[in-house]
Amino acid sequence: LDYQHVQVPFEITLWIMLASLAKIGFHLYNKLPSVVPESCLLIFVGLIMGGIIYGLNDKSPPVMDSDIFFLYLLPPIVLDAGYFMPSRPFFENIGTILLYAVVGTIWNVFGIGFSLYGICQVKSFHLQDVSLLHNLLFGSLIAAVDPVAVLAVFEEIHVNEKLHILVFGESLLNDAVTVVLYKLFRSFCEMPAIKTVDVFAGVGKFFVVGLGGVLVGLTFGMIAAFTTRFTNNIRVIEPLFVFLYSYLSYLTAEMFHLSGIVAIIACAMGMKRYVEANISLKSHTTVKYFMKMWSSVSDTLIFIFLGVSTIGENHEWNWPYICFTVIFCLIWRALGVLVLTFFVNRFHVNTVTSKDQFIIAYGGLRGAICFSLVFLLPDFHRKKLFIAATTVVILFTVFVQGMTIRPLVDLLHVKKKRESAPTVGEQIHIRFLDHLLAGIEDISGHWGQYYWKDKLEYFNSKYLQKILLREYDQPKSSIVLLYEKLERKHAIELAEAGQLGHTPSHPSLLNSHRTVVTDKKSEDTLNPEVLQNIQEILARNLYRIRRTVPAYNRHTLPGETEPAEQAKEILIFRHTSL
Amino acid sequence: LDYQHVQVPFEITLWIMLASLAKIGFHLYNKLPSVVPESCLLIFVGLIMGGIIYGLNDKSPPVMDSDIFFLYLLPPIVLDAGYFMPSRPFFENIGTILLYAVVGTIWNVFGIGFSLYGICQVKSFHLQDVSLLHNLLFGSLIAAVDPVAVLAVFEEIHVNEKLHILVFGESLLNDAVTVVLYKLFRSFCEMPAIKTVDVFAGVGKFFVVGLGGVLVGLTFGMIAAFTTRFTNNIRVIEPLFVFLYSYLSYLTAEMFHLSGIVAIIACAMGMKRYVEANISLKSHTTVKYFMKMWSSVSDTLIFIFLGVSTIGENHEWNWPYICFTVIFCLIWRALGVLVLTFFVNRFHVNTVTSKDQFIIAYGGLRGAICFSLVFLLPDFHRKKLFIAATTVVILFTVFVQGMTIRPLVDLLHVKKKRESAPTVGEQIHIRFLDHLLAGIEDISGHWGQYYWKDKLEYFNSKYLQKILLREYDQPKSSIVLLYEKLERKHAIELAEAGQLGHTPSHPSLLNSHRTVVTDKKSEDTLNPEVLQNIQEILARNLYRIRRTVPAYNRHTLPGETEPAEQAKEILIFRHTSL
Repeated sequence: LDYQHVQVPFEITLWIMLASLAKIGFHLYNKLPSVVPESCLLIFVGLIMGGIIYGLNDKSPPVMDSDIFFLYLLPPIVLDAGYFMPSRPFFENIGTILLYAVVGTIWNVFGIGFSLYGICQVKSFHLQDVSLLHNLLFGSLIAAVDPVAVLAVFEEIHVNEKLHILVFGESLLNDAVTVVLYKLFRSFCEMPAIKTVDVFAGVGKFFVVGLGGVLVGLTFGMIAAFTTRFTNNIRVIEPLFVFLYSYLSYLTAEMFHLSGIVAIIACAMGMKRYVEANISLKSHTTVKYFMKMWSSVSDTLIFIFLGVSTIGENHEWNWPYICFTVIFCLIWRALGVLVLTFFVNRFHVNTVTSKDQFIIAYGGLRGAICFSLVFLLPDFHRKKLFIAATTVVILFTVFVQGMTIRPLVDLLHVKKKRESAPTVGEQIHIRFLDHLLAGIEDISGHWGQYYWKDKLEYFNSKYLQKILLREYDQPKSSIVLLYEKLERKHAIELAEAGQLGHTPSHPSLLNSHRTVVTDKKSEDTLNPEVLQNIQEILARNLYRIRRTVPAYNRHTLPGETEPAEQAKEILIFRHTSL
Repeated sequence: LDYQHVQVPFEITLWIMLASLAKIGFHLYNKLPSVVPESCLLIFVGLIMGGIIYGLNDKSPPVMDSDIFFLYLLPPIVLDAGYFMPSRPFFENIGTILLYAVVGTIWNVFGIGFSLYGICQVKSFHLQDVSLLHNLLFGSLIAAVDPVAVLAVFEEIHVNEKLHILVFGESLLNDAVTVVLYKLFRSFCEMPAIKTVDVFAGVGKFFVVGLGGVLVGLTFGMIAAFTTRFTNNIRVIEPLFVFLYSYLSYLTAEMFHLSGIVAIIACAMGMKRYVEANISLKSHTTVKYFMKMWSSVSDTLIFIFLGVSTIGENHEWNWPYICFTVIFCLIWRALGVLVLTFFVNRFHVNTVTSKDQFIIAYGGLRGAICFSLVFLLPDFHRKKLFIAATTVVILFTVFVQGMTIRPLVDLLHVKKKRESAPTVGEQIHIRFLDHLLAGIEDISGHWGQYYWKDKLEYFNSKYLQKILLREYDQPKSSIVLLYEKLERKHAIELAEAGQLGHTPSHPSLLNSHRTVVTDKKSEDTLNPEVLQNIQEILARNLYRIRRTVPAYNRHTLPGETEPAEQAKEILIFRHTSL
């Protein structure tokens, strides 16, 4: 037995396996996930696992390594979030989201930091050795809403699109603020004296970290789109580039101390449109499915590790500090949302209702990011107290808030997401209004949202598409693409329906005899002669499967042909047959 | 700048990126890959890279780590090979493949080992310090044909299926023999004296290592199939299990010193059938594409690393030893193939022709496995000579044989692979003959291939399928499945053709006006009234898109509905409409 040799990959594989099996287990019974959010169940599994490890080894189980979290577990989730981000509601509410993410987070950091410092002054709590800077540092890591936790809970409660994007967008974009404040206070803690210059430099860093992240992300996104222009001879490695470039953007941003999360989101949102047009349909399915799979596994692992890491002897218990942390987190967030929304509502027609405000405040879940940050703190004598407080806040928000938010949403009758996709008519009207408003804004000289959107669209079609898209010479309007997609979908369903209708060999169709009998009565519906006629015509126009691809080729998969080629062949075939 | 922090993932990503970009580069010009095999080009890129690193740093570039190769790069390629292995030709020729893999490899090991020992006795070559055991050890690592190199070359020359499976199957299955002989001779080298018991134990190990690998693989394959029975509520993580279980089988086999390659192939071949039936169509696309992508990247990285590792100061040059190694590798393989094929042809009706024999002997390419094994050798004073000889053999086989094999195949008119897939008629006849032969064998009491296949099939449908498949109560015959698939394909093409016919908005269709004009002449082909009628009926029977899935859900993708549900709904819809 040579366990040493295979230990690293073996244990990684086993952890992933455990996570996946836990996931399957929960979903075996449909009732369980509808009551308790998956994240709670996973933390619970982690707690049990941690307990077992603690009981067997009699020492604390290994805590989640912050490097592993930030370098390997977080990027897939953020990539998935960015790639599937609905861009319209995101950009429509970008101002509000930024306000919550930047001003709201700063508000929370200083609010929590200063009020905890106040608590520390009470002599009977024995906390007088915790300085203001340490409290602010703690505030900077505990204030940020966690995208992983928010996503895990909000995707199950189906609130309306705007509310979802406000909470979720905030949790993603506050990363830039958290990074800056956390690093600022950490370096202040180690400095002998703080000059005014340092404070101003810190303020300047906000812009560098945030905008730098966007820049890095967009650059890599454009390179990714450009690369996929040239993959038409080697389709198999297409999906790779989506993952490689977005990961590179994250790592590059981290390397320059910029916001990796912002970078990867900018990269994913930037490249999506062009990559989708360049790569093949099956590659795109692979990208989508693999991204979902990967983020789902990462997310599962994070919650399990969170549970495992909770068990052990890393904690210093101090009732007042921990309780007041939880209370201040709740209060300052609620206050922040109220104040900021007041300003937001003054400038918007479509206001944020008071129910929405409540859910935004209540949905401020903390998660693995805080947890990793608190372990990254430099060693000082009260670190274990901070770890304990962070753990309690995370467990409180995920368990108590996460489990009660769904009943509250139902109780308050918060506007849910509409169940159906917009119809073609609605889409056409939305687009028409966009153009109209852009025109009005242009005439009135107001450089608003629609004006910039229109300008960007013009720049995109005039320059970007020519560089980044392979087949730019044949631009299809999106309505034609939608029509083709629907047509293809209908055709598949038609085939399935047809096959149900006229293959007597199919076992599930013995009970369709009744249909045939009733058919007699409604002769006009499916006249046998017409049917015969249809079949003849269909058969004549069917596209022959002429080409088969060699079975062993590494670069292609069996049955992979270009849709463009197929269409051309069909055209030729029709020309000759007519 | 904090490069240290992100170094590991950053460099890995950059290497993969380099490999992918190199691949794109070759395929930009279609002519290049048709003349030179990709593997040669990649090694060439590696040589240049190695030269640059050597020139800049003035020290040898890092060699490919054997652990990285065996634990991370090799498994994806073998998994891909096993999963897409055409099982019929493989099992039809399993006897011949095993003969080549086991007896042939042993023949080569001892042949090369002893004759090199003979060369070492020549005084003027200054090689008298290389013992017989070291020569045999060297023989054991240089004798094995490499699956990665074989796959890279043979998938481009499209020889007939039987020839391909003989060479490729041998290269995969000889792993068990290589592992045993290599470890045996290595331990002998370190022993003070060798007892007869050790030799017999070595012979016994063959069976343990090979059959053990098969057992481990099949066990994990069955568990994988069983697990996918329960994933219908959480489709996104389905593809994961295929990768996790096969990787676990590889690692477990390696852990117990069994043949990992054999294990992963057994696992992939065992689970494929059941997993395919259990998981959704899109999950299956993801599995297939991701496997192809991953193996393609691994293979690219291996060849680039091979090139990089060649440069440097690891080599001790000794003309006679190196030249004779190349010559003996060629001679002993040719002799082995001739002798073994003589016996094979005596027992088979469908013989291996002399042209095929030549290609089998000539296709014995060496690759990265030899290279990794030679670096794993314990340190002794002639290790650098072995490294040099291995490098030369690999480069000689990949460059000289790899580049000339395609012209030779054309020159000798070796039977190529048939271009088209077998028709439904052929498939039915093949199946009929299988049943017939199984019956004949059963009556005549001859326990041949067909008898066992029939028994296995019976066992499969009686027990295995009930345990491993989710929807066993509705078994569909494969002919019904094929029909459904064809129907669906036709429907898509029909939709595309139809869309080409009646949307004047489509830009590429302005030239189809001519079609409409000629339409008048052939009134009977597409009568407008009939067309009208058809459209009415089609429209009435179309399945309405009623359901849309929430856009943010982590566990599902937009537009993912169960085919079974769809079929049911169509049925209901038809019932109500009739």
